Amino acid sequence: QVDTHIHAAACMNQKHLLRFIKHTYQTEPDRIVAEKKGKKMTLKQVFESLHMDPYDLTVDSLDVHAGRQTFHRFDKFNSKYNPVGASELRDLYLKTENYIGGEYFARMVKEVARELEESKYQYTEPRLSIYGRSPDEWLNLAKWFIKHKVYSPNMRWIIQVPRIYDIFRSKNILPSFGKMLENIFVPLFEATINPKDHKELHLFLKYVTGFDSVDDESKHSGHMFSDKSLNPDLWTSEKNPPYSYYLYYMYVNIMLLNNLRNFLFRPHCGEAGSITHLVSAFLTADNISHGLLLKKSPVLQYLYYLAQIPIAMSPLSNNSLFLEYSKNPLREFLHKGLRVSLSTDDPMQFHYTKEALMEEYAIAAQVWKLSTCDLCEIARNSVLQSGLSDKEKQKFLGVNYCKEGPEGNDIRKTNVAQIRMAFRYETLCNELSFLSDAMRTEEISTLSK
Amino acid sequence: QVDTHIHAAACMNQKHLLRFIKHTYQTEPDRIVAEKKGKKMTLKQVFESLHMDPYDLTVDSLDVHAGRQTFHRFDKFNSKYNPVGASELRDLYLKTENYIGGEYFARMVKEVARELEESKYQYTEPRLSIYGRSPDEWLNLAKWFIKHKVYSPNMRWIIQVPRIYDIFRSKNILPSFGKMLENIFVPLFEATINPKDHKELHLFLKYVTGFDSVDDESKHSGHMFSDKSLNPDLWTSEKNPPYSYYLYYMYVNIMLLNNLRNFLFRPHCGEAGSITHLVSAFLTADNISHGLLLKKSPVLQYLYYLAQIPIAMSPLSNNSLFLEYSKNPLREFLHKGLRVSLSTDDPMQFHYTKEALMEEYAIAAQVWKLSTCDLCEIARNSVLQSGLSDKEKQKFLGVNYCKEGPEGNDIRKTNVAQIRMAFRYETLCNELSFLSDAMRTEEISTLSK
Repeated sequence: QVDTHIHAAACMNQKHLLRFIKHTYQTEPDRIVAEKKGKKMTLKQVFESLHMDPYDLTVDSLDVHAGRQTFHRFDKFNSKYNPVGASELRDLYLKTENYIGGEYFARMVKEVARELEESKYQYTEPRLSIYGRSPDEWLNLAKWFIKHKVYSPNMRWIIQVPRIYDIFRSKNILPSFGKMLENIFVPLFEATINPKDHKELHLFLKYVTGFDSVDDESKHSGHMFSDKSLNPDLWTSEKNPPYSYYLYYMYVNIMLLNNLRNFLFRPHCGEAGSITHLVSAFLTADNISHGLLLKKSPVLQYLYYLAQIPIAMSPLSNNSLFLEYSKNPLREFLHKGLRVSLSTDDPMQFHYTKEALMEEYAIAAQVWKLSTCDLCEIARNSVLQSGLSDKEKQKFLGVNYCKEGPEGNDIRKTNVAQIRMAFRYETLCNELSFLSDAMRTEEISTLSK
Repeated sequence: QVDTHIHAAACMNQKHLLRFIKHTYQTEPDRIVAEKKGKKMTLKQVFESLHMDPYDLTVDSLDVHAGRQTFHRFDKFNSKYNPVGASELRDLYLKTENYIGGEYFARMVKEVARELEESKYQYTEPRLSIYGRSPDEWLNLAKWFIKHKVYSPNMRWIIQVPRIYDIFRSKNILPSFGKMLENIFVPLFEATINPKDHKELHLFLKYVTGFDSVDDESKHSGHMFSDKSLNPDLWTSEKNPPYSYYLYYMYVNIMLLNNLRNFLFRPHCGEAGSITHLVSAFLTADNISHGLLLKKSPVLQYLYYLAQIPIAMSPLSNNSLFLEYSKNPLREFLHKGLRVSLSTDDPMQFHYTKEALMEEYAIAAQVWKLSTCDLCEIARNSVLQSGLSDKEKQKFLGVNYCKEGPEGNDIRKTNVAQIRMAFRYETLCNELSFLSDAMRTEEISTLSK
């Protein structure tokens, strides 16, 4: 099984983070870890400045876990990324760029990786952020990755781009949306065309399999994207472009890049906000994260079914933020034949055990009484929609995994019953032929007129 | 938190058992591990005789996990204790008495213990069986415990007595119910009165904190326990005595023993069958496991509330066997102020992650949107009702934990809000004074007549 949607900055659970903080405080209190207004600070001083004693910290005072108070409050949820509410600790422990070169964050990610490697069949696709504030971000991220040897055979990396142009623009960090796109994509073209001059980035990109577009979807933009919309270079206002604009320009750039390499586009979509986001992603995405709002649009649901666009769902995340578990449409989507997988989103905020993905499967299995076959189908979907290589997919799903229907299923590897595969295949074929018949009839009746 | 109800033979999860089986097969295939009809068999031969290759085993073919097919079928559930449906493997891997002296079972239990010790604050109270077939059982169990050093600071042992006299009687292993009681209790009196002559049992008993009475409660006995019922020595028929009879005679013997030591009586009760079981346990038990059927009797529920009899509930177990998760009364009981704790029952059958108890808490928290305060109250209850020593309870709950109300709560240790403690205390006091007032009014009105 692959955790198809997880943010690196929240890939450890709260207890893990707590222990790590305590451990660093015990072992290296006098290490200089930050600089504030030109003054260097030791770890001890950082905690003193926050009036905090790490010995007294508990998972509760750490306060990174989502609860009832975050339901329908994405703003409150976002602040949960700050341990004990202190952005200083987020910078120190959960960022790749800081005084210690993101060492603490790298160490925790590697601890998570070691546990995955031990469990053998668990893979994960953590998201790392590129903001587009400056063209150096890529190189810094690549250096962090290489310096701390963050590589793990059980991890494939995805780059998430937060849709927060408006914040950078209002702080005058960016002159236009075009500049943001430039900062995000130009370094990639350069490193791809001329790898020798960009060795670090070139190496890092080997482990990056795709892009995600992230932020609170319920924030509404007044603008309606059309052929009259301004070009990115001319988009200089402080207003944030709409979701569709972001998706289109990311898509275009990724497609261009894909003449030279092979990135997937896997945006967050349909977690909240307008259902039109699902239209944008239908036209541009390889697969999406969440897709919750397909619940509200039978037509879009049908389109996602026909096109078999994979959906990485995170019902525990939804349960804390947008939709109660029992109302989550995952089960219905699965039974209808949509290509859903289970993912954790943010183990730090939502999960209790060390095995966050297994916990996600466990709860789904218990609440919805999913059968072994259901669970295995979900796991198979997760491998299919992941950024794992062709070779790895062959290893986990069988050599013919690309073929459709039961032929593509190696039951000894997937444990999905052939009758299930046959049912899915026949149902889809029937649906498609029903549609093409309907179209033909229409053509004929038009002709006969 | 303490896992207040868990069976030792199912305390590892399915993946753990699978890995252990594979590991033994890889490392010692030629070891003699069993004897069948006088013929010694190596591990390899055992698997050959079952036409099985451990390399092909998966968690699915292992088939120890409960699923939809076990709902309302306790018989099918019981057979899940047999890996791959083979009782030979149960004997070899999950029993304390077999050709290898229960070594495999001991090793797995110890692996579970190591993980608990590492997680620091997780304790568990596994049940080991004493059947009452022969007086040697105790000594054998004690020897197993000592030989394999099964001791762990994070485990307290409970002895479960299955209510299956009828099976032993029909096989002529026992002449009467009295003999069964004798086999169970006489060795305890002897070892308690004369520890020097029973060193092993005496040592083992230091870590045993109580008794459980187990079996399928939905099996009905025609007999109605009363003062006309036969004495145990005269109960020689093949009919199984009723639940109340078992409970009464276990209770009497434990009370006698408790003149000399301090065992708790913590029977399974109210999982299924007649609600009168809850009456028997109300009169005899220190606390009970399950208590599900209190849902059906407001009067008994009220009595359990007034007496604050602790209830170790296992909603995931119930979900697979008797009652869907969403209908489980745990949340309602908790909110009413009954002393509920969360327990796993059988991680091998019901859980997916390595942290079974945490998984149990996670699902309850997610499905019922329990607050941190709720979870901490449940955890506090679990420590209170456990067999941990006074000293340990002081360590986890605060030195005044025996006092009632907020006074007994050390929030720095329990993280239960004082306002919650005050609410519980006031509500209970009000309820009790309401009752005593009512009784007094009745007395007065009787007098005035």
